[in-house]
Amino acid sequence: MIEVVALDGDDTLWHNELQFSMTQVRFCELVSPYARDADLDGRLLATERVNLSTYGYGVKSFTLSMVETAIEVSQGRVPASVIEAILDSGKAMLSHPVELLDGVVEAVDDLGERFALMVITKGDLFHQESKLARSGLAERFQRVEIVSEKDEATYRRIIERVGVRPDQFVMAGNSLRSDVLPVAALGGHAVHVPFHTTWALEDVSPEEAAGYDFDTIDSLFELPALIDRLGR
Amino acid sequence: MIEVVALDGDDTLWHNELQFSMTQVRFCELVSPYARDADLDGRLLATERVNLSTYGYGVKSFTLSMVETAIEVSQGRVPASVIEAILDSGKAMLSHPVELLDGVVEAVDDLGERFALMVITKGDLFHQESKLARSGLAERFQRVEIVSEKDEATYRRIIERVGVRPDQFVMAGNSLRSDVLPVAALGGHAVHVPFHTTWALEDVSPEEAAGYDFDTIDSLFELPALIDRLGR
Repeated sequence: MIEVVALDGDDTLWHNELQFSMTQVRFCELVSPYARDADLDGRLLATERVNLSTYGYGVKSFTLSMVETAIEVSQGRVPASVIEAILDSGKAMLSHPVELLDGVVEAVDDLGERFALMVITKGDLFHQESKLARSGLAERFQRVEIVSEKDEATYRRIIERVGVRPDQFVMAGNSLRSDVLPVAALGGHAVHVPFHTTWALEDVSPEEAAGYDFDTIDSLFELPALIDRLGR
Repeated sequence: MIEVVALDGDDTLWHNELQFSMTQVRFCELVSPYARDADLDGRLLATERVNLSTYGYGVKSFTLSMVETAIEVSQGRVPASVIEAILDSGKAMLSHPVELLDGVVEAVDDLGERFALMVITKGDLFHQESKLARSGLAERFQRVEIVSEKDEATYRRIIERVGVRPDQFVMAGNSLRSDVLPVAALGGHAVHVPFHTTWALEDVSPEEAAGYDFDTIDSLFELPALIDRLGR
């Protein structure tokens, strides 16, 4: 029997990647006059990848990587006004209204009555808490885990702490790498809810996902019915 | 009887403020040629204060505030090379070796045998986890709570979660505002271990601390004996 249902935050409960993408378009507009031939998206991604082990995930890390990339690709010719505009675009992301995805309210309403409901989300502690508070959903979750990495060790620790067996635990989210494969590997019920855009550093090839046992649904609207089937 | 002993991280277990101070000196050296008459320390603090509600605590927030301040005080005249040097100084803080304070190893050794030992630390999740891992102490703590704000609500939640009464709980740390007063207000045992430098935004006046019941010790060396006395 299912006891605990955990949901991812970014691009599962609320929009996230869209704001990164739009900010990145703005970054390219701002910086391209100073680096006409550079592959700005590629250079930014390369900077983010290198910085991940120093900065971790989140908007502040992204903002710092944008500033660093702007300086590098322009060979130092980017003016302070552009750096300032990049800082402003990062702040705008942090204060952007939280926009829930379709089906979230309905799924949370339904599942919250029948299961211990929790959020497991990755990234910047301060920003994730802020988003959860502004989502209007905070009171609906019995437990919130904001973690720096969503891997098998993290899920094992959380499942142990809530005191259930992996087969009593459901995790639903948009990222195969962070929400689905590590939970499936532990024997939990993993549910993939794909979002149309995935950050390059979260991407998983079909080959990597092969051999893992998980379900896929189109939106959280479908999650309660799926869990009913899992529990039978 | 005391059941749980919680210790703060920054400037209680390991050095922190010293690295901020040294980086701030470097910031002033870098930026002063472009803002000769400005009160750089004061302007940076003002920026940090305004940004706290958007960025939260930590080195990434501090780095972003340094970049913003450099642009503002120079009225945009600061060159990209200086911004780059500021980014580098932030990265240096994040990868700086963890330096334990005197008495920490001895206190943890002693207390870990007799009590459930935990860390309660504030700030950037990724960096705090990294520091704890590099401190060599991670295995010594039964529980680690990295929180965005250390106020009464936070301590109440943690004490409830570990399942003890406030009078069975000891919290020791260097910040009156974050480690001592909220725990004393809840009826827990609060122990102040002053560090010689306190960040301006953590400062508490003697008037604010008056009327709270807590102990003060010079270093963690003294904590085991103090807890023995508390438990009697």
